[in-house]
Amino acid sequence: MAGGKAKRGIPSKMDDFNAWYPFIVEAAELVDKRYPIKGMDVWRPYGWKTMRLIDSLTHAEMERTDHEEVNFPLLIPENLLEKENALVARLKRAREEGVDPDDLRGEEEEGGFMKEVYWVKHAGENDLDIPMFLRPTSETAMYTMFPLWVRSHKDLPLKVYQMVNTFRYETKQTRSFIRVREIHFFEAHTAHVDEDCASRQIAQDLEIVDNLMHDLCLPVIKAKRPVWDTFPGAWYTIAIDAIMPNGRTLQVASCHHYRDQWAKAFDLTYENLDAQQQHCHQTTYGMSERLLGAIVGMHGDDNGLIMPPAIAPFQIVICPMIRKNSDVDTIGKAEEIANTLKSAGLRVKVDSRDIRAGQKYFDWEIKGVPLRLDIGPRDIENGTAFAALRTGGKKPLPMDDIVAQCNIVLNEIANELRERANSHSSDVIQPLTDLGAVEDGKIYEMAFDGTDSHAETIERTTGLSFLGDATEPYSEERPCFMSGKPTTRRVLLAKTY
Amino acid sequence: MAGGKAKRGIPSKMDDFNAWYPFIVEAAELVDKRYPIKGMDVWRPYGWKTMRLIDSLTHAEMERTDHEEVNFPLLIPENLLEKENALVARLKRAREEGVDPDDLRGEEEEGGFMKEVYWVKHAGENDLDIPMFLRPTSETAMYTMFPLWVRSHKDLPLKVYQMVNTFRYETKQTRSFIRVREIHFFEAHTAHVDEDCASRQIAQDLEIVDNLMHDLCLPVIKAKRPVWDTFPGAWYTIAIDAIMPNGRTLQVASCHHYRDQWAKAFDLTYENLDAQQQHCHQTTYGMSERLLGAIVGMHGDDNGLIMPPAIAPFQIVICPMIRKNSDVDTIGKAEEIANTLKSAGLRVKVDSRDIRAGQKYFDWEIKGVPLRLDIGPRDIENGTAFAALRTGGKKPLPMDDIVAQCNIVLNEIANELRERANSHSSDVIQPLTDLGAVEDGKIYEMAFDGTDSHAETIERTTGLSFLGDATEPYSEERPCFMSGKPTTRRVLLAKTY
Repeated sequence: MAGGKAKRGIPSKMDDFNAWYPFIVEAAELVDKRYPIKGMDVWRPYGWKTMRLIDSLTHAEMERTDHEEVNFPLLIPENLLEKENALVARLKRAREEGVDPDDLRGEEEEGGFMKEVYWVKHAGENDLDIPMFLRPTSETAMYTMFPLWVRSHKDLPLKVYQMVNTFRYETKQTRSFIRVREIHFFEAHTAHVDEDCASRQIAQDLEIVDNLMHDLCLPVIKAKRPVWDTFPGAWYTIAIDAIMPNGRTLQVASCHHYRDQWAKAFDLTYENLDAQQQHCHQTTYGMSERLLGAIVGMHGDDNGLIMPPAIAPFQIVICPMIRKNSDVDTIGKAEEIANTLKSAGLRVKVDSRDIRAGQKYFDWEIKGVPLRLDIGPRDIENGTAFAALRTGGKKPLPMDDIVAQCNIVLNEIANELRERANSHSSDVIQPLTDLGAVEDGKIYEMAFDGTDSHAETIERTTGLSFLGDATEPYSEERPCFMSGKPTTRRVLLAKTY
Repeated sequence: MAGGKAKRGIPSKMDDFNAWYPFIVEAAELVDKRYPIKGMDVWRPYGWKTMRLIDSLTHAEMERTDHEEVNFPLLIPENLLEKENALVARLKRAREEGVDPDDLRGEEEEGGFMKEVYWVKHAGENDLDIPMFLRPTSETAMYTMFPLWVRSHKDLPLKVYQMVNTFRYETKQTRSFIRVREIHFFEAHTAHVDEDCASRQIAQDLEIVDNLMHDLCLPVIKAKRPVWDTFPGAWYTIAIDAIMPNGRTLQVASCHHYRDQWAKAFDLTYENLDAQQQHCHQTTYGMSERLLGAIVGMHGDDNGLIMPPAIAPFQIVICPMIRKNSDVDTIGKAEEIANTLKSAGLRVKVDSRDIRAGQKYFDWEIKGVPLRLDIGPRDIENGTAFAALRTGGKKPLPMDDIVAQCNIVLNEIANELRERANSHSSDVIQPLTDLGAVEDGKIYEMAFDGTDSHAETIERTTGLSFLGDATEPYSEERPCFMSGKPTTRRVLLAKTY
């Protein structure tokens, strides 16, 4: 390994991110990779609790925006996949040939999904009549049911979501949270009366993304993917990319506007105010455990994880100093403060193990607990708890105002994480000036209004991928990098996971 | 159909439970059975929310008893199943031959699990090297990892649980919640230093069962299953059976004491205080969506579901009377009261649809909302809301004390559900006096200290199954039904789902 070692065998994050990441994921006990199937990790309690807290933020946003939670079967019969394949193949051909997809109806051919799914063709000692596959995502399963639920415009919008396990037969190298074969997945699916209503849903999705990313302290790039990287069956895709420390981007979420393409494939219609049957317009919004991968990668340091306070399983760990032959009940005091903090809704752990303080600090640093409170006899005398911020810095906090003080410090920590992440993003995103001088570890932006063939040239020359058009364009026109034509389109390029 | 119809097409529960149950499950929008795979229903928002609320009670009990939540992969490699099969086959032979299972080590043969699982042998276009199956339960997956987590007595007890989808290839007729092919499942797995510690865990499991069943208002039978109905690989099984309206029992949960049998099969050892390697003793505790099946069956009536307040997605629905040309803002008042109740932690829905009151009442009755508050201009004048209890009875509640009043009424409703269910149980459970006079729809109890061959005779003659020895035996000795030998063993017999 190239990278230096920080302490107790933790690889250096900056020198060797590829060694640091898997080390930390296991050392912090997020997952165990020793399960005997590659790419299917065991979620350990600390990792699962973190993921469930991320999910809670999502649940709250779904409730705020009137989505309802459902739960669909894991298995999908093969014939439904065929419907999807036909749709995708037709859209692809229409794009390539520059014709209206509707002109190609009836001329379907086989699509490409078959390569990515796990198949169930046997049960017990029987061959199944109809093979089934494990959902990679639930469009086909859901859109088979939607026509049974939607009759009239009064049933719209239909807004549902689920949090489930999905499966992809990955052939590339697997990495915890980033590229796995069983994926902890969130998917929202909506149906609307028309294209505009569906577009407003996409806008709402992006607002939800902003709220979540604020809590996770993650700056992200939101970009409308180029046509060749649009989700099969979508009119357009807006993807949300997190920026990893090595400058690679990690797609953590995406929203798709389907117009009425899927509705036509699945006969999803409603009766409008004029008693006419219309096809619905649909959207989806997906996220996954990659959010946790981004949190690990973005915020961690050479001592371990740093958990954003909003999703830290323990926001505060209290370490009472344990001195034999002392009259002062530090453990009792620690428990008392913990109860006060818990009553105020904070997640708190008291570590009263009889081991060296240094070992405790190490354990909680690697797990990324944002705030540690040390309590010794002298602290009790002073009426203070001694705070150590995981982002750096120490100070005494008055015990008689401990809830408010801890909330202030946790906010400081979240802000510090946001500042660090934002500053990293600003450093990494550079204007593209010269196709020949592309540096490793950088993301490039440019004004671009060229053709697909221009784009292909750029991708081939630089080895970078088009992330697409940033949802925030330039505020004034600039010359296109290839054609010189003035444009406000801000296009981003990166090496991606 | 034999049964009469109650109102608007709902079959009569008492006359035709087999028609009532599936009708109500769909009419209340718990699940949709029209998904194109038999035995795999779609959970609709109302059903899923109910299930998640049941899960919340379980989560709270798990936290109280220091279990940690994990999440294991769905797929299990075939070779792990072979380990389990070998264990089960060995135990079965040992039982049949009356020898110590340890004497048969190395003489394993194939067990019976193979018949119940879905197989994944293909992914994309490839045949997999090692076939995998969808977990029917997670002993094999977990016990492969436990030896990596347990080194010394300090790592014990290990207490983990998960809530996941599991799969059984059912060949019998499927029924929502009761017999399905994808099962929403809870499983707790523990490892201990010795048999006594594991036994104390079983006692704690049964205490958790009591707490949950209190909230679900379900009386249950807890019985140690006879040897021939013990979970494969278990030393003993205590099963928890709910009593359905037709007198059949429905196993909703079970606890297994494994002693060190699985630990020996999976090499799960720890170093004890004397620095010696010992095998762990293990237990499991499982529950499933059958809990919801029992709630539907036990509490519902000819107007629909009745949700126990602890798990009702809406505990209270408020129906403002909507009068055109009235100055009184009933909807505003309803919203105001709803907000007061929500702030107090109650789950409340305001139904301000502009439809006939009768239609609203029908909708919420079928969904089993425990408490309805009607608010009209006169109620506002009187400072009251008019309460209609789903269990029967109406009364005005003073608005200025609405939180306390609603809590009192919700408690009354829960108590009423408990009383009804208890009274049903007492009616259904009868002493067995005559093998030839067994009635349909009854559960029988008897003092029994006979042999397996006695039991077989009884099962064959009556058509009933042994539930096993009730965990609450007779307080004094009685003559065994077969041998006349005095015993306190109270054995239960029933037709089972």
